[in-house]
Amino acid sequence: MEKISEIQKICLRRAIVFPTAEIYGGISGFFDYGEIGKKIKDKIIAELKKFFKEENFIEIEGSIILPKEVFKASGHLDSFVDPIVKCKNCNSYFRADHLIEEKLKIKVEGKSIEEIDRIIKENKIKCPNCNSELENVKEFNLMFKLTVGAENEAYLRPETAQNIFIDFKRIYFGYGAKLPFAIMQVGYSFRNEISPRQFLIRLRAFTQFEIEMFFDPKNENCPIEKYLDVELPILTREAQRKNSEEIKWIKVRELLENKIIKSKWQAYFLAKEFIFFTQVLKIDKNKLRFRHVLEEETPFYSAGNFDLEYYFDDFGWKEIVGNAYRTDYDLKVHMQHSKEDLKVENIIAHVAEPSFGIDRIFLALLNEHFKIDRKYFAFPYKLAPYYVAVFPLVSNKEEIVKKAREVYEMLRKEFFDDVIYDEGFIGKLYAKADEIGIPLCITIDYQTLNDNSVTIRFRDTKEQIRVSISELINKIKEIIFSN
Amino acid sequence: MEKISEIQKICLRRAIVFPTAEIYGGISGFFDYGEIGKKIKDKIIAELKKFFKEENFIEIEGSIILPKEVFKASGHLDSFVDPIVKCKNCNSYFRADHLIEEKLKIKVEGKSIEEIDRIIKENKIKCPNCNSELENVKEFNLMFKLTVGAENEAYLRPETAQNIFIDFKRIYFGYGAKLPFAIMQVGYSFRNEISPRQFLIRLRAFTQFEIEMFFDPKNENCPIEKYLDVELPILTREAQRKNSEEIKWIKVRELLENKIIKSKWQAYFLAKEFIFFTQVLKIDKNKLRFRHVLEEETPFYSAGNFDLEYYFDDFGWKEIVGNAYRTDYDLKVHMQHSKEDLKVENIIAHVAEPSFGIDRIFLALLNEHFKIDRKYFAFPYKLAPYYVAVFPLVSNKEEIVKKAREVYEMLRKEFFDDVIYDEGFIGKLYAKADEIGIPLCITIDYQTLNDNSVTIRFRDTKEQIRVSISELINKIKEIIFSN
Repeated sequence: MEKISEIQKICLRRAIVFPTAEIYGGISGFFDYGEIGKKIKDKIIAELKKFFKEENFIEIEGSIILPKEVFKASGHLDSFVDPIVKCKNCNSYFRADHLIEEKLKIKVEGKSIEEIDRIIKENKIKCPNCNSELENVKEFNLMFKLTVGAENEAYLRPETAQNIFIDFKRIYFGYGAKLPFAIMQVGYSFRNEISPRQFLIRLRAFTQFEIEMFFDPKNENCPIEKYLDVELPILTREAQRKNSEEIKWIKVRELLENKIIKSKWQAYFLAKEFIFFTQVLKIDKNKLRFRHVLEEETPFYSAGNFDLEYYFDDFGWKEIVGNAYRTDYDLKVHMQHSKEDLKVENIIAHVAEPSFGIDRIFLALLNEHFKIDRKYFAFPYKLAPYYVAVFPLVSNKEEIVKKAREVYEMLRKEFFDDVIYDEGFIGKLYAKADEIGIPLCITIDYQTLNDNSVTIRFRDTKEQIRVSISELINKIKEIIFSN
Repeated sequence: MEKISEIQKICLRRAIVFPTAEIYGGISGFFDYGEIGKKIKDKIIAELKKFFKEENFIEIEGSIILPKEVFKASGHLDSFVDPIVKCKNCNSYFRADHLIEEKLKIKVEGKSIEEIDRIIKENKIKCPNCNSELENVKEFNLMFKLTVGAENEAYLRPETAQNIFIDFKRIYFGYGAKLPFAIMQVGYSFRNEISPRQFLIRLRAFTQFEIEMFFDPKNENCPIEKYLDVELPILTREAQRKNSEEIKWIKVRELLENKIIKSKWQAYFLAKEFIFFTQVLKIDKNKLRFRHVLEEETPFYSAGNFDLEYYFDDFGWKEIVGNAYRTDYDLKVHMQHSKEDLKVENIIAHVAEPSFGIDRIFLALLNEHFKIDRKYFAFPYKLAPYYVAVFPLVSNKEEIVKKAREVYEMLRKEFFDDVIYDEGFIGKLYAKADEIGIPLCITIDYQTLNDNSVTIRFRDTKEQIRVSISELINKIKEIIFSN
């Protein structure tokens, strides 16, 4: 846990991301983003949007509170449950399936509450806190329930996707869409996890970036050609059944031909994700894999799920993007429950969905680019919280400080809040800027007063170059945006 | 209601903003934004940020779910209540104060539940739906309550400000802040209104943009000088007591000298708001006023509240920004309840707060720029959902369509999703683009094939000019960003 604990220390000290309501002892599973964290998170979302949002993608911003009927239809009200168990003595709650997995090293995915209860009792599993006996296993719905008005039952959405399905028709007609087209949404989702843990990995409130691509399965009309030769790292079902971690590099063409992936649109998203993570977020391709979710873990309506997983040094492989070929399930159930006709172009559209977990991707970016020797974040330039910091070499020389302020004001007009200004001992200022991953530091020194040149110092190499103030903006743009 | 109903019709038909969960009959007080609405809303927020966020403003993104302790301290748990009353026959709920105001034309602001109940009974006020008798008046807390984990009481925040106060210390030290400095946040807030109404005016979920400026009241250190001569439209307390609507134009200097405004920072925000709304959102200055909130309406801890109100044609004057000089109340109560020392630089900082209601500002923008004769939105160019639409003059001429697609692709590289492409009858395309306020339409016609020039058509004048494709991007930038 060395790396993640170093990262967490910096996150706290620099207020990058920190526990919600700290002064009241916190509230487990919730975190607040400070400016640095928020800016990185916003830049990840902006890059995702730029990379994925094509002409036929329509963005919405739907309500995070939705009426009961939506989740009755979607199945969440009945099936979005975890098995939980309470200690008879210390009153702590635990995930019953996690207790079994940890104690007995067996998977209980898909087993009923009664079966799980029987396993706990037969194996005499005790409370991990106080070693006392446990109560009966119960179902626990992961949705947060609330009352709207005086008495209407409603829920916080557990995924952003449901807004998209229930708004499908309004958007289709309002934007004159034609299949295939996508509706996308970035926003919060909420899951009342019984044991939130692992920093930003298992949160109770998190940000999702979801795309629902609606298409005719008989005529997908997907621009897959340009991605057919992309090789993807697959953890196959066969490997998983053999308890192997061996990753196979398989071309998209082959995945489609062998019907491992059953929709071109799903293949399209997998390929683009791989390119995005390796090229834009600059994540090592060997720390990414698509896990072909096993049959028994796949929802009954899905024609195939692939979890894009990232290897966290301290947590191991964790899902950062879920990919589901949801078929026509969602529109069909909402059609049945709402009695609205959700057919368009004579069919119930099929859906391929990539679902990006933004907080986990944020943490993956931090993990990937943290240099433990120098304790700083070597973020790709475009994703750094600020592009540039401006410093006077000394803060007790009026002319130098004045000049530094002028340079700062000039850069602020161009880069707004992507540039910061600070004063102090120059070595300390560089270290502080490096720590949070600012790619470039501009220093105004004695020479500046003579020839209007400043130094640009590079975060990763600590190398410095001299640039004339008149060329500074273009130089910064060239460095930041070509990287 | 002619104007607002025309606006709502377009909002529905073009899926700009529409009721949440429509296919299930909706959920009162909640709306979803489609792409057009979302883009306008995002642009309002971006312009606000550009205009208000200075060097010493730090942005955060805090949790919308907060533990009970936060609202115990803030006073929301005990005092954020409305008086409600239920009909004995039809079981409808009503705001008791609204019933009295409507029936008796008297204000009951500040009266106790018992007094309000007595007034209802003495005046024999009946159910406005079915004319039956009403039950006793009850207190109804406006916060949405939920359970976190198996049994922890928590609430959806009713204002974004509370995150800022509880994160104050972490941010202060994490960002090396010095008084005066501001923490700002854009995000959702939630209030369980018993009778949501007036489209986006009284919502149960809404977006706020809040700034908390922390300062030393003995040494405000506020750059107010440049705003001292700004004249603001004030609805004075005197005018309100005389039931007059007369607006006085008063200089900021005078408001401060006469102690009508008691903090320079509050004056600073009022002046900037006025400039923002008139110059950036281009709202008629005669449809804006700062209402000096009456003593009896002002929270006990506040040293003065000013509501910036906009005149909606169909709803009258409505608050779009609340300004409160909250003194040291917030940090003090959180200090008492959390036992954390929230003093910095030896004082409990004072707070001046502008709180922007983004959905209402969005609606004000729609109302202000809707041209009822031609039924289109004449948005300021920078705030339009898209800057440019590209059309082929005819859609059955392959060369023209191909060229139009090329021009579109070129513009998309520069303007991304601020440019759209469409095909059809050109007159209809122009009308559709005008309706949602797209400032410029580019048409590719027969002449384009000869001389690589296209037409730019202006939304407001319908005037057309011819521009060479090679100059198109610069021309568009010049038009959009100079306007």
